[in-house]
Amino acid sequence: MNIAVLGTGVVGQALADRLSGLGHQVFMGTRNVADSLAKTEADRMGNPPIGTWLKEHPKVQLVTFKEAVDKGGKLIVFAMNGQVAKECLHAVGEQLLNGKILIDISNPLDFSKGFPPTLFVSNTESLSEQIQNQYPTLKVVKTLNTMSNPVMVNPKLIEGDHSVFVSGNDTAAKAKVTDLLKSFGWEERNILDLGDITTARGTEMILPLWLRLYSKFQTPFFNFSIKRAQL
Amino acid sequence: MNIAVLGTGVVGQALADRLSGLGHQVFMGTRNVADSLAKTEADRMGNPPIGTWLKEHPKVQLVTFKEAVDKGGKLIVFAMNGQVAKECLHAVGEQLLNGKILIDISNPLDFSKGFPPTLFVSNTESLSEQIQNQYPTLKVVKTLNTMSNPVMVNPKLIEGDHSVFVSGNDTAAKAKVTDLLKSFGWEERNILDLGDITTARGTEMILPLWLRLYSKFQTPFFNFSIKRAQL
Repeated sequence: MNIAVLGTGVVGQALADRLSGLGHQVFMGTRNVADSLAKTEADRMGNPPIGTWLKEHPKVQLVTFKEAVDKGGKLIVFAMNGQVAKECLHAVGEQLLNGKILIDISNPLDFSKGFPPTLFVSNTESLSEQIQNQYPTLKVVKTLNTMSNPVMVNPKLIEGDHSVFVSGNDTAAKAKVTDLLKSFGWEERNILDLGDITTARGTEMILPLWLRLYSKFQTPFFNFSIKRAQL
Repeated sequence: MNIAVLGTGVVGQALADRLSGLGHQVFMGTRNVADSLAKTEADRMGNPPIGTWLKEHPKVQLVTFKEAVDKGGKLIVFAMNGQVAKECLHAVGEQLLNGKILIDISNPLDFSKGFPPTLFVSNTESLSEQIQNQYPTLKVVKTLNTMSNPVMVNPKLIEGDHSVFVSGNDTAAKAKVTDLLKSFGWEERNILDLGDITTARGTEMILPLWLRLYSKFQTPFFNFSIKRAQL
Protein backbone atom coordinates (compact mmCIF):
# COMPACT_ATOMS: atom_id res chain seq x y z
CA MET A 1 0.00 0.00 0.00
CA ASN A 2 0.97 3.65 -0.13
CA ILE A 3 2.48 4.94 3.11
CA ALA A 4 3.72 8.37 4.15
CA VAL A 5 6.85 8.48 6.30
CA LEU A 6 7.41 11.92 7.74
CA GLY A 7 11.07 12.52 8.51
CA THR A 8 14.34 11.85 6.70
CA GLY A 9 16.53 11.02 9.72
CA VAL A 10 17.67 7.58 10.80
CA VAL A 11 14.26 6.61 12.16
CA GLY A 12 12.50 7.71 9.00
CA GLN A 13 15.12 5.93 6.90
CA ALA A 14 14.78 2.70 8.89
CA LEU A 15 11.00 2.71 8.55
CA ALA A 16 11.04 3.71 4.88
CA ASP A 17 13.64 1.05 4.07
CA ARG A 18 11.66 -1.68 5.81
CA LEU A 19 8.28 -0.65 4.41
CA SER A 20 9.69 -0.30 0.92
CA GLY A 21 11.36 -3.71 1.24
CA LEU A 22 7.98 -5.17 2.18
CA GLY A 23 6.60 -3.90 -1.11
CA HIS A 24 4.88 -0.72 0.06
CA GLN A 25 5.18 2.51 -1.91
CA VAL A 26 6.76 4.96 0.49
CA PHE A 27 6.42 8.72 0.18
CA MET A 28 9.01 10.26 2.44
CA GLY A 29 8.05 13.71 3.66
CA THR A 30 10.41 16.57 4.42
CA ARG A 31 10.10 20.30 5.05
CA ASN A 32 11.80 21.33 1.82
CA VAL A 33 12.89 18.77 -0.76
CA ALA A 34 15.59 20.94 -2.34
CA ASP A 35 17.11 21.75 1.06
CA SER A 36 17.14 18.07 2.05
CA LEU A 37 18.80 17.04 -1.22
CA ALA A 38 21.35 19.85 -0.94
CA LYS A 39 22.82 18.30 2.21
CA THR A 40 26.15 16.63 1.44
CA GLU A 41 27.49 15.84 4.89
CA ALA A 42 26.83 12.91 7.17
CA ASP A 43 24.83 13.70 10.32
CA ARG A 44 26.47 13.80 13.76
CA MET A 45 25.92 10.05 14.10
CA GLY A 46 27.80 9.39 10.84
CA ASN A 47 24.73 8.59 8.78
CA PRO A 48 24.94 9.60 5.11
CA PRO A 49 22.87 12.52 3.79
CA ILE A 50 19.38 11.69 2.55
CA GLY A 51 20.38 12.20 -1.10
CA THR A 52 22.87 9.35 -0.80
CA TRP A 53 20.32 7.21 1.00
CA LEU A 54 17.73 7.86 -1.73
CA LYS A 55 20.12 6.66 -4.43
CA GLU A 56 20.22 3.33 -2.59
CA HIS A 57 16.42 3.38 -2.26
CA PRO A 58 15.22 4.45 -5.71
CA LYS A 59 11.66 3.31 -5.04
CA VAL A 60 11.21 5.78 -2.17
CA GLN A 61 10.00 9.20 -3.29
CA LEU A 62 11.09 12.30 -1.40
CA VAL A 63 8.34 14.91 -1.33
CA THR A 64 7.00 17.61 1.02
CA PHE A 65 5.18 16.68 4.25
CA LYS A 66 1.92 17.68 2.62
CA GLU A 67 2.50 15.78 -0.59
CA ALA A 68 3.61 12.68 1.32
CA VAL A 69 0.36 12.58 3.27
CA ASP A 70 -1.66 13.39 0.16
CA LYS A 71 -0.14 10.47 -1.76
CA GLY A 72 0.53 8.21 1.22
CA GLY A 73 -2.89 6.65 1.46
CA LYS A 74 -4.40 6.09 4.87
CA LEU A 75 -1.21 5.48 6.79
CA ILE A 76 1.21 8.12 8.08
CA VAL A 77 4.34 7.29 10.06
CA PHE A 78 5.58 10.22 12.12
CA ALA A 79 9.31 9.56 12.46
CA MET A 80 10.79 12.86 13.61
CA ASN A 81 11.77 14.39 16.92
CA GLY A 82 8.68 15.08 19.00
CA GLN A 83 9.59 18.76 19.18
CA VAL A 84 8.67 19.31 15.52
CA ALA A 85 5.49 17.21 15.52
CA LYS A 86 3.09 20.12 15.68
CA GLU A 87 4.95 22.17 13.05
CA CYS A 88 5.05 19.19 10.71
CA LEU A 89 1.36 18.32 11.11
CA HIS A 90 0.42 21.98 10.77
CA ALA A 91 2.25 22.01 7.43
CA VAL A 92 0.15 19.04 6.30
CA GLY A 93 -3.10 20.62 7.45
CA GLU A 94 -6.20 19.26 9.13
CA GLN A 95 -8.04 18.51 5.92
CA LEU A 96 -5.47 16.00 4.67
CA LEU A 97 -5.07 14.41 8.11
CA ASN A 98 -8.81 13.81 8.48
CA GLY A 99 -9.62 10.11 8.98
CA LYS A 100 -6.05 8.90 8.53
CA ILE A 101 -3.94 6.76 10.87
CA LEU A 102 -0.88 8.42 12.36
CA ILE A 103 1.70 5.99 13.75
CA ASP A 104 3.47 8.17 16.28
CA ILE A 105 6.90 6.77 17.10
CA SER A 106 8.28 10.06 18.39
CA ASN A 107 9.20 11.06 21.92
CA PRO A 108 8.88 14.46 23.60
CA LEU A 109 12.61 14.76 24.23
CA ASP A 110 14.09 18.11 25.15
CA PHE A 111 17.88 18.11 24.68
CA SER A 112 18.19 21.87 25.29
CA LYS A 113 19.96 21.25 28.60
CA GLY A 114 22.16 18.42 27.28
CA PHE A 115 22.18 14.73 28.16
CA PRO A 116 20.12 13.17 29.58
CA PRO A 117 17.22 15.02 27.99
CA THR A 118 14.02 15.75 29.89
CA LEU A 119 10.51 15.38 28.48
CA PHE A 120 8.73 18.56 27.38
CA VAL A 121 5.39 16.97 28.18
CA SER A 122 4.82 14.11 30.66
CA ASN A 123 3.01 12.82 33.72
CA THR A 124 -0.40 14.47 33.24
CA GLU A 125 -0.33 14.40 29.43
CA SER A 126 1.62 12.90 26.54
CA LEU A 127 2.72 14.17 23.15
CA SER A 128 0.41 11.65 21.48
CA GLU A 129 -2.56 12.98 23.44
CA GLN A 130 -1.67 16.54 22.45
CA ILE A 131 -1.63 15.51 18.78
CA GLN A 132 -4.88 13.56 19.20
CA ASN A 133 -6.56 16.50 20.91
CA GLN A 134 -5.42 18.89 18.21
CA TYR A 135 -6.64 16.64 15.37
CA PRO A 136 -9.68 14.75 16.72
CA THR A 137 -10.41 13.01 13.39
CA LEU A 138 -6.85 11.73 13.06
CA LYS A 139 -6.40 8.21 14.46
CA VAL A 140 -3.24 8.47 16.52
CA VAL A 141 -1.56 5.18 17.42
CA LYS A 142 1.52 5.38 19.61
CA THR A 143 3.96 2.54 19.16
CA LEU A 144 7.64 1.62 18.63
CA ASN A 145 8.87 4.69 20.58
CA THR A 146 10.42 2.57 23.33
CA MET A 147 13.32 1.12 21.34
CA SER A 148 16.03 1.98 18.83
CA ASN A 149 15.15 2.06 15.13
CA PRO A 150 16.99 -1.14 14.10
CA VAL A 151 14.95 -3.07 16.68
CA MET A 152 11.68 -1.41 15.61
CA VAL A 153 11.80 -2.81 12.11
CA ASN A 154 13.68 -6.02 12.87
CA PRO A 155 12.73 -7.35 16.30
CA LYS A 156 14.55 -10.62 15.61
CA LEU A 157 17.79 -8.70 16.20
CA ILE A 158 17.09 -9.52 19.85
CA GLU A 159 16.60 -13.19 20.58
CA GLY A 160 13.48 -14.42 22.33
CA ASP A 161 10.46 -12.51 23.52
CA HIS A 162 10.52 -8.75 24.01
CA SER A 163 7.76 -6.21 23.88
CA VAL A 164 6.27 -3.46 21.77
CA PHE A 165 3.46 -1.33 23.20
CA VAL A 166 0.45 0.06 21.36
CA SER A 167 -1.78 2.94 22.54
CA GLY A 168 -4.71 4.50 20.73
CA ASN A 169 -8.42 5.32 20.84
CA ASP A 170 -9.39 3.63 17.57
CA THR A 171 -9.58 -0.17 17.68
CA ALA A 172 -9.55 -0.63 13.90
CA ALA A 173 -6.53 1.65 13.56
CA LYS A 174 -4.69 -0.33 16.24
CA ALA A 175 -5.53 -3.57 14.43
CA LYS A 176 -4.06 -2.17 11.20
CA VAL A 177 -0.91 -1.03 13.01
CA THR A 178 -0.65 -4.41 14.71
CA ASP A 179 -0.70 -6.08 11.28
CA LEU A 180 2.11 -3.78 10.18
CA LEU A 181 4.12 -4.67 13.30
CA LYS A 182 3.62 -8.36 12.56
CA SER A 183 4.94 -7.78 9.04
CA PHE A 184 8.11 -6.38 10.65
CA GLY A 185 8.52 -9.65 12.53
CA TRP A 186 6.79 -8.87 15.83
CA GLU A 187 5.06 -11.87 17.35
CA GLU A 188 1.45 -11.22 18.33
CA ARG A 189 2.12 -12.27 21.94
CA ASN A 190 4.73 -9.51 22.25
CA ILE A 191 2.49 -6.71 20.94
CA LEU A 192 0.89 -5.25 24.06
CA ASP A 193 -2.18 -3.07 23.56
CA LEU A 194 -2.21 -0.84 26.64
CA GLY A 195 -5.54 0.85 25.89
CA ASP A 196 -6.48 4.35 24.84
CA ILE A 197 -4.12 7.13 23.83
CA THR A 198 -3.65 8.32 27.44
CA THR A 199 -1.58 5.17 28.00
CA ALA A 200 1.08 6.76 25.77
CA ARG A 201 2.10 8.69 28.90
CA GLY A 202 3.52 5.46 30.24
CA THR A 203 5.53 4.56 27.17
CA GLU A 204 6.84 8.10 26.64
CA MET A 205 7.86 8.21 30.29
CA ILE A 206 10.11 5.16 30.05
CA LEU A 207 12.44 7.05 27.72
CA PRO A 208 14.54 8.40 30.61
CA LEU A 209 15.19 4.81 31.72
CA TRP A 210 15.90 3.73 28.13
CA LEU A 211 18.48 6.52 27.81
CA ARG A 212 20.22 5.49 31.05
CA LEU A 213 20.35 1.89 29.88
CA TYR A 214 21.77 3.08 26.56
CA SER A 215 24.50 4.93 28.47
CA LYS A 216 25.18 1.84 30.54
CA PHE A 217 25.27 -0.69 27.70
CA GLN A 218 26.80 1.66 25.09
CA THR A 219 24.64 -0.03 22.49
CA PRO A 220 21.06 0.52 21.33
CA PHE A 221 20.52 -3.21 20.75
CA PHE A 222 18.30 -3.91 23.74
CA ASN A 223 14.63 -3.71 24.52
CA PHE A 224 12.10 -3.90 27.32
CA SER A 225 10.40 -7.22 27.77
CA ILE A 226 7.42 -7.74 30.03
CA LYS A 227 7.71 -11.06 31.78
CA ARG A 228 4.67 -12.60 33.41
CA ALA A 229 4.52 -15.32 36.03
CA GLN A 230 3.12 -18.65 34.84
CA LEU A 231 0.63 -19.00 37.68
CA MET B 1 22.06 -8.20 60.94
CA ASN B 2 19.71 -5.61 62.41
CA ILE B 3 17.55 -3.89 59.82
CA ALA B 4 14.94 -1.14 60.11
CA VAL B 5 11.86 -1.47 57.90
CA LEU B 6 9.84 1.73 57.89
CA GLY B 7 6.20 1.05 57.11
CA THR B 8 3.64 -1.53 58.21
CA GLY B 9 1.71 -1.90 54.94
CA VAL B 10 1.97 -4.78 52.49
CA VAL B 11 5.36 -3.68 51.16
CA GLY B 12 6.81 -3.31 54.65
CA GLN B 13 5.30 -6.64 55.65
CA ALA B 14 6.74 -8.41 52.60
CA LEU B 15 10.21 -7.01 53.23
CA ALA B 16 10.08 -7.65 56.98
CA ASP B 17 8.85 -11.20 56.46
CA ARG B 18 11.60 -11.98 53.96
CA LEU B 19 14.39 -10.33 55.95
CA SER B 20 13.26 -11.98 59.16
CA GLY B 21 13.08 -15.34 57.39
CA LEU B 22 16.67 -14.83 56.25
CA GLY B 23 17.69 -14.50 59.89
CA HIS B 24 17.90 -10.73 60.21
CA GLN B 25 16.49 -8.95 63.25
CA VAL B 26 13.85 -6.60 61.86
CA PHE B 27 12.67 -3.48 63.64
CA MET B 28 9.50 -2.35 61.94
CA GLY B 29 8.89 1.36 62.26
CA THR B 30 5.52 3.07 62.48
CA ARG B 31 4.24 6.54 63.38
CA ASN B 32 2.55 5.45 66.59
CA VAL B 33 2.79 1.87 67.87
CA ALA B 34 -0.42 1.96 69.94
CA ASP B 35 -2.42 3.35 66.99
CA SER B 36 -1.04 0.67 64.66
CA LEU B 37 -1.86 -2.12 67.10
CA ALA B 38 -5.35 -0.73 67.72
CA LYS B 39 -6.33 -1.37 64.10
CA THR B 40 -8.62 -4.38 63.88
CA GLU B 41 -9.83 -4.23 60.28
CA ALA B 42 -8.24 -5.50 57.11
CA ASP B 43 -7.03 -2.81 54.71
CA ARG B 44 -8.86 -2.07 51.46
CA MET B 45 -6.85 -4.80 49.73
CA GLY B 46 -8.02 -7.37 52.29
CA ASN B 47 -4.71 -7.59 54.13
CA PRO B 48 -4.99 -8.28 57.88
CA PRO B 49 -4.18 -5.53 60.40
CA ILE B 50 -0.56 -5.30 61.51
CA GLY B 51 -1.36 -6.72 64.97
CA THR B 52 -2.50 -9.97 63.36
CA TRP B 53 0.54 -10.00 61.10
CA LEU B 54 2.86 -9.49 64.07
CA LYS B 55 1.38 -12.52 65.87
CA GLU B 56 2.49 -14.57 62.86
CA HIS B 57 5.90 -12.88 62.93
CA PRO B 58 6.86 -12.85 66.61
CA LYS B 59 10.51 -12.11 65.84
CA VAL B 60 9.67 -8.76 64.24
CA GLN B 61 9.52 -5.87 66.70
CA LEU B 62 7.11 -3.01 66.08
CA VAL B 63 8.56 0.29 67.29
CA THR B 64 8.50 3.97 66.29
CA PHE B 65 10.26 5.19 63.13
CA LYS B 66 12.96 6.68 65.30
CA GLU B 67 13.47 3.62 67.45
CA ALA B 68 13.54 1.37 64.38
CA VAL B 69 16.38 3.36 62.86
CA ASP B 70 18.16 3.63 66.20
CA LYS B 71 18.11 -0.16 66.66
CA GLY B 72 18.16 -1.14 63.00
CA GLY B 73 21.87 -0.97 62.46
CA LYS B 74 23.19 0.51 59.24
CA LEU B 75 20.36 -0.51 56.98
CA ILE B 76 17.00 1.20 56.63
CA VAL B 77 14.32 0.03 54.22
CA PHE B 78 11.82 2.77 53.37
CA ALA B 79 8.67 0.85 52.48
CA MET B 80 5.89 3.44 52.59
CA ASN B 81 4.10 5.62 50.08
CA GLY B 82 6.46 8.25 48.70
CA GLN B 83 4.14 11.00 49.89
CA VAL B 84 5.06 10.39 53.53
CA ALA B 85 8.81 9.93 52.99
CA LYS B 86 9.80 13.38 54.20
CA GLU B 87 7.51 13.29 57.23
CA CYS B 88 8.82 9.86 58.20
CA LEU B 89 12.50 10.78 57.82
CA HIS B 90 11.91 14.06 59.64
CA ALA B 91 10.51 12.02 62.56
CA VAL B 92 13.72 9.98 62.62
CA GLY B 93 15.94 13.03 62.45
CA GLU B 94 19.18 13.81 60.64
CA GLN B 95 21.44 12.67 63.46
CA LEU B 96 20.19 9.07 63.40
CA LEU B 97 20.19 8.94 59.60
CA ASN B 98 23.80 10.08 59.35
CA GLY B 99 25.99 7.55 57.51
CA LYS B 100 23.27 4.92 57.15
CA ILE B 101 22.00 3.24 53.99
CA LEU B 102 18.43 3.96 53.00
CA ILE B 103 16.94 1.47 50.57
CA ASP B 104 14.22 3.55 48.95
CA ILE B 105 11.59 1.33 47.34
CA SER B 106 8.91 4.01 47.33
CA ASN B 107 7.37 5.85 44.41
CA PRO B 108 6.15 9.45 44.23
CA LEU B 109 2.57 8.44 43.44
CA ASP B 110 -0.21 10.98 43.78
CA PHE B 111 -3.62 9.28 43.89
CA SER B 112 -5.47 12.50 44.78
CA LYS B 113 -7.12 12.56 41.35
CA GLY B 114 -7.87 8.84 41.27
CA PHE B 115 -6.49 6.12 39.00
CA PRO B 116 -4.10 6.22 37.27
CA PRO B 117 -2.06 8.28 39.70
CA THR B 118 0.40 10.92 38.53
CA LEU B 119 3.88 11.47 39.97
CA PHE B 120 4.30 14.38 42.38
CA VAL B 121 7.92 14.72 41.30
CA SER B 122 9.38 13.56 37.98
CA ASN B 123 11.28 14.40 34.82
CA THR B 124 13.77 16.96 36.20
CA GLU B 125 14.07 15.38 39.66
CA SER B 126 13.13 12.22 41.55
CA LEU B 127 11.92 11.51 45.06
CA SER B 128 15.17 9.70 45.80
CA GLU B 129 17.18 12.76 44.78
CA GLN B 130 15.03 14.96 47.01
CA ILE B 131 15.72 12.66 49.95
CA GLN B 132 19.43 12.49 49.10
CA ASN B 133 19.64 16.29 48.83
CA GLN B 134 17.85 16.75 52.14
CA TYR B 135 20.11 14.25 53.96
CA PRO B 136 23.53 14.44 52.25
CA THR B 137 25.18 12.00 54.68
CA LEU B 138 22.48 9.38 54.17
CA LYS B 139 23.37 6.83 51.49
CA VAL B 140 20.20 6.58 49.42
CA VAL B 141 19.91 3.53 47.17
CA LYS B 142 16.85 3.33 44.98
CA THR B 143 15.80 -0.19 44.07
CA LEU B 144 12.86 -2.62 43.87
CA ASN B 145 10.34 0.17 43.18
CA THR B 146 9.54 -1.13 39.69
CA MET B 147 7.65 -4.27 40.70
CA SER B 148 5.05 -5.63 43.10
CA ASN B 149 6.13 -6.66 46.60
CA PRO B 150 5.83 -10.44 46.13
CA VAL B 151 8.25 -10.21 43.19
CA MET B 152 10.64 -7.92 45.10
CA VAL B 153 11.39 -10.52 47.74
CA ASN B 154 10.90 -13.64 45.64
CA PRO B 155 12.01 -13.01 42.05
CA LYS B 156 11.74 -16.73 41.25
CA LEU B 157 7.95 -16.21 41.18
CA ILE B 158 8.61 -15.18 37.58
CA GLU B 159 10.46 -17.73 35.51
CA GLY B 160 13.65 -16.81 33.69
CA ASP B 161 15.54 -13.55 33.61
CA HIS B 162 13.93 -10.28 34.63
CA SER B 163 15.44 -7.11 35.97
CA VAL B 164 15.87 -5.07 39.12
CA PHE B 165 17.46 -1.62 38.90
CA VAL B 166 19.80 0.04 41.38
CA SER B 167 20.59 3.77 41.61
CA GLY B 168 22.78 5.54 44.14
CA ASN B 169 25.82 7.74 44.68
CA ASP B 170 27.67 5.45 47.10
CA THR B 171 29.37 2.42 45.54
CA ALA B 172 29.84 0.54 48.81
CA ALA B 173 26.21 1.09 49.75
CA LYS B 174 25.08 -0.23 46.37
CA ALA B 175 27.31 -3.29 46.83
CA LYS B 176 25.68 -3.99 50.21
CA VAL B 177 22.20 -3.60 48.72
CA THR B 178 23.17 -5.84 45.81
CA ASP B 179 24.18 -8.54 48.31
CA LEU B 180 20.80 -8.21 49.96
CA LEU B 181 19.05 -8.52 46.59
CA LYS B 182 21.05 -11.67 45.88
CA SER B 183 19.92 -13.09 49.21
CA PHE B 184 16.32 -12.57 48.00
CA GLY B 185 17.10 -14.71 44.95
CA TRP B 186 18.07 -12.08 42.40
CA GLU B 187 20.74 -13.28 39.97
CA GLU B 188 23.67 -10.90 39.64
CA ARG B 189 23.18 -10.61 35.86
CA ASN B 190 19.67 -9.27 36.45
CA ILE B 191 20.70 -6.56 38.94
CA LEU B 192 21.30 -3.48 36.78
CA ASP B 193 23.27 -0.65 38.37
CA LEU B 194 22.14 2.42 36.42
CA GLY B 195 24.56 4.86 38.04
CA ASP B 196 24.10 7.73 40.47
CA ILE B 197 20.92 8.69 42.27
CA THR B 198 19.71 10.89 39.39
CA THR B 199 19.03 7.67 37.47
CA ALA B 200 16.17 7.06 39.91
CA ARG B 201 14.18 9.46 37.71
CA GLY B 202 14.08 6.74 35.09
CA THR B 203 12.87 3.99 37.38
CA GLU B 204 10.31 6.18 39.14
CA MET B 205 9.01 7.29 35.74
CA ILE B 206 8.20 3.78 34.58
CA LEU B 207 5.53 3.50 37.26
CA PRO B 208 2.81 4.90 34.95
CA LEU B 209 3.57 2.10 32.48
CA TRP B 210 3.67 -0.48 35.30
CA LEU B 211 0.23 0.67 36.45
CA ARG B 212 -1.24 0.39 32.94
CA LEU B 213 0.20 -3.11 32.59
CA TYR B 214 -1.30 -3.99 35.97
CA SER B 215 -4.70 -2.81 34.71
CA LYS B 216 -4.26 -4.84 31.54
CA PHE B 217 -3.07 -8.07 33.14
CA GLN B 218 -5.20 -7.77 36.32
CA THR B 219 -2.32 -9.31 38.22
CA PRO B 220 0.83 -7.88 39.82
CA PHE B 221 2.87 -10.98 38.94
CA PHE B 222 4.91 -9.50 36.10
CA ASN B 223 8.13 -7.56 35.79
CA PHE B 224 10.26 -5.60 33.37
CA SER B 225 13.10 -7.49 31.80
CA ILE B 226 15.84 -5.84 29.79
CA LYS B 227 16.74 -8.04 26.84
CA ARG B 228 19.99 -7.44 25.01
CA ALA B 229 21.00 -8.61 21.56
CA GLN B 230 23.72 -11.27 21.47
CA LEU B 231 25.87 -9.45 18.91
